[in-house]
Amino acid sequence: MSNKQPLSTEPYKGVHDYYPEDWSKAQAIFNVIRTTLRKSGFEEYQASVLERAELYESKTSEEIVNQQTYTFVDRGDRKVTLRPEMTPTLARMVAGRRRELVFPLRWFSIGNRFRYERPQKGRSREFYQADVDIVGIEGAKAEGEAVVMAYEILRAFGATNKDFRIRMNSRALMNAAANALSLNTEDSASYLALIDRKDKMPVEEFESSRGTFRRNGTDPLELIEARTDESVDAVYRQFMALIDSLKARGMDNVVFDPTIVRGFLYYTGLIFEVFDTNPENPRALLGGGRYDGLVALFGDEPVPAVGFAIGIETLTDFLATHNLLPALPPPADIFIGTPSEANIANAQAVASMFREHGLNVLVNVSNKGLGDQVKEAVRRGVPYFVAIGEDETKLKKAKLKTLASSEEIEIGTDLIPAHIYKVRSDGA
Amino acid sequence: MSNKQPLSTEPYKGVHDYYPEDWSKAQAIFNVIRTTLRKSGFEEYQASVLERAELYESKTSEEIVNQQTYTFVDRGDRKVTLRPEMTPTLARMVAGRRRELVFPLRWFSIGNRFRYERPQKGRSREFYQADVDIVGIEGAKAEGEAVVMAYEILRAFGATNKDFRIRMNSRALMNAAANALSLNTEDSASYLALIDRKDKMPVEEFESSRGTFRRNGTDPLELIEARTDESVDAVYRQFMALIDSLKARGMDNVVFDPTIVRGFLYYTGLIFEVFDTNPENPRALLGGGRYDGLVALFGDEPVPAVGFAIGIETLTDFLATHNLLPALPPPADIFIGTPSEANIANAQAVASMFREHGLNVLVNVSNKGLGDQVKEAVRRGVPYFVAIGEDETKLKKAKLKTLASSEEIEIGTDLIPAHIYKVRSDGA
Repeated sequence: MSNKQPLSTEPYKGVHDYYPEDWSKAQAIFNVIRTTLRKSGFEEYQASVLERAELYESKTSEEIVNQQTYTFVDRGDRKVTLRPEMTPTLARMVAGRRRELVFPLRWFSIGNRFRYERPQKGRSREFYQADVDIVGIEGAKAEGEAVVMAYEILRAFGATNKDFRIRMNSRALMNAAANALSLNTEDSASYLALIDRKDKMPVEEFESSRGTFRRNGTDPLELIEARTDESVDAVYRQFMALIDSLKARGMDNVVFDPTIVRGFLYYTGLIFEVFDTNPENPRALLGGGRYDGLVALFGDEPVPAVGFAIGIETLTDFLATHNLLPALPPPADIFIGTPSEANIANAQAVASMFREHGLNVLVNVSNKGLGDQVKEAVRRGVPYFVAIGEDETKLKKAKLKTLASSEEIEIGTDLIPAHIYKVRSDGA
Repeated sequence: MSNKQPLSTEPYKGVHDYYPEDWSKAQAIFNVIRTTLRKSGFEEYQASVLERAELYESKTSEEIVNQQTYTFVDRGDRKVTLRPEMTPTLARMVAGRRRELVFPLRWFSIGNRFRYERPQKGRSREFYQADVDIVGIEGAKAEGEAVVMAYEILRAFGATNKDFRIRMNSRALMNAAANALSLNTEDSASYLALIDRKDKMPVEEFESSRGTFRRNGTDPLELIEARTDESVDAVYRQFMALIDSLKARGMDNVVFDPTIVRGFLYYTGLIFEVFDTNPENPRALLGGGRYDGLVALFGDEPVPAVGFAIGIETLTDFLATHNLLPALPPPADIFIGTPSEANIANAQAVASMFREHGLNVLVNVSNKGLGDQVKEAVRRGVPYFVAIGEDETKLKKAKLKTLASSEEIEIGTDLIPAHIYKVRSDGA
């Protein structure tokens, strides 16, 4: 308590405070995601935000590791990183119990991730993501299920197929094209990086840069388009079959987009991203892909895995743009006012009875007059108000006020919970 | 992907991985706390785990700041601390919006905190706490409500008054006694520190150390016991009135314990801790107190505040000891098996129908035989199994198997959800 200079009330740079209204909004979004995933038998896991730094070195994207991780040395000289993404942690946990776990795993995790980026709209240094993964199934079956889950989540918020577009690509297809052209590993990686930056550079620069990767006048993207190579064509047709199966399930907003690359180095098959069709939100809402090699980094054989991450901030922007933010519950169902301090014990007894019926109840404990207590209930957004004084206690009757309409009815105190539930179900 | 040496699957030292069964257990506990608090109109907030380091310096306990914080310098040369506790963040957030917020605040936050301690049972470097605070109410009214909420939470898990004891003390009482004996600030602090360590030293050492703090043959604890000083007696009687009011509400497990100190420097009035009556769990399940000066460190006038934190690990030990851990939901309500791959589309259609009725459904996507699919459902703890093949699709009838009893009934496929809900409500 020795500080003289007042402390700043600002949070650490680039992160958010979640006041109750903000957190309630975030939790409502988490809950739609959670409920949708649980309907398909997905189970939630969690891990510490602290990870050994080596988990990311030369696995995650180089940009993230070199420029964006929060990495420090702890009091015991260990190099620690605040997780910038969840997938390496998932792979570590799967590898740690691969003999005991019942495969396939359908796992998800909702939590915070950390990247030291320049703070801007939809991009904070601590941000929330939902990570969804299917582990232990090879091929298109699991890839299809992953894309379906992403689709189902957005639909669960009330989004229609017109509101978003699912862009799918395949690292396997890219690799087949690069192989057919005999590009070496380094050139393949550079080519992917070039495609990834495509939208951030002038067309002329892109066109001149891609020249380096042409063999016999063709680069991988051009070969995929032309499909003059048999092996490329085989992978292409397999991938189109996956896309067609999704379209057959009503997902007419799925498109093949060979320019989708994604930054992470560990993808091996499908990669996909979902975008808002409204250009106001140009960043991907979610993205993911297949990463069959990641679990094997912990020793033992590879385990097939496919998954995606939803960025909660970009998702929130999407939902707000399309007017799809979930409705929020009030901080309490009813506010019990007290004419004087002497009534507080009685009010608390009534509150206990209401709570036993499942209601959330605020009881006045201030010395304010009843009028000011009603105003407080209104400011808090509580829908009902009832005052419990001596008469109400004696007669077991009270005036229940609906604050939105200022309507008041006289009602037996013990009938209030049933009345509130009835009005609520009639309105629903 | 260039690493040759396999990576370790161990998490960072001293923290936990939460596999789905672990996280499901933790979330069940969080949800009992959440539901209980919401019933009394408490609202949940959240903040980043990253805080400016100055928030803790010379406010939180010195042991924590000097030996236990995770503090590092970020890529922009800012000194950052992973929050070791939530109260300073709460105070910062309250101070930041004190003009807009509707007081009193009843706020809680469930999340992780970080301390670099030696890992041991019930003590990890990342641990979960629920912080519960009432801000904006002076005196015993809010202190009583805080203790009641702690009590209600433990009762909501099914604990009885015999399972735990609430030990209450008052910093105001201690201060009155120290003032009456004219101890200076430094001696008062040292005396508190001595009491705090009392149980960790031999009786003789304690008895000889307290001699330093005797004035006219009496130290503060002795003066509180004797109550020969009028000002001490006045504070004592006020505090006993609070304890009596709690006992009158049925909380016969509340005791006055003048040796409860608590480590944090910022307490100004009530302090309390809750202990398991079973000596197997000697650490406090929860603790808290009044800290009226904390918000004022951010400038402006003080705001009265009282609250407590529940340690989820010690709470879990308590619940396990008393056999009160909440029941966990299965990963899905029903497993739909498929005789062959050709049936998967039909199985998925049935699954969609079940999900519309609110069930959580797993669909087989493997090539395993039906017998192995049943085994998989059993291993996962899913209560029901149904196979959807060609006949079932044609006849819209199937055999529903209850896995616990191996009982099987033939039933219209579309009647399965209602059947499951009926069995569940009959069993409840």
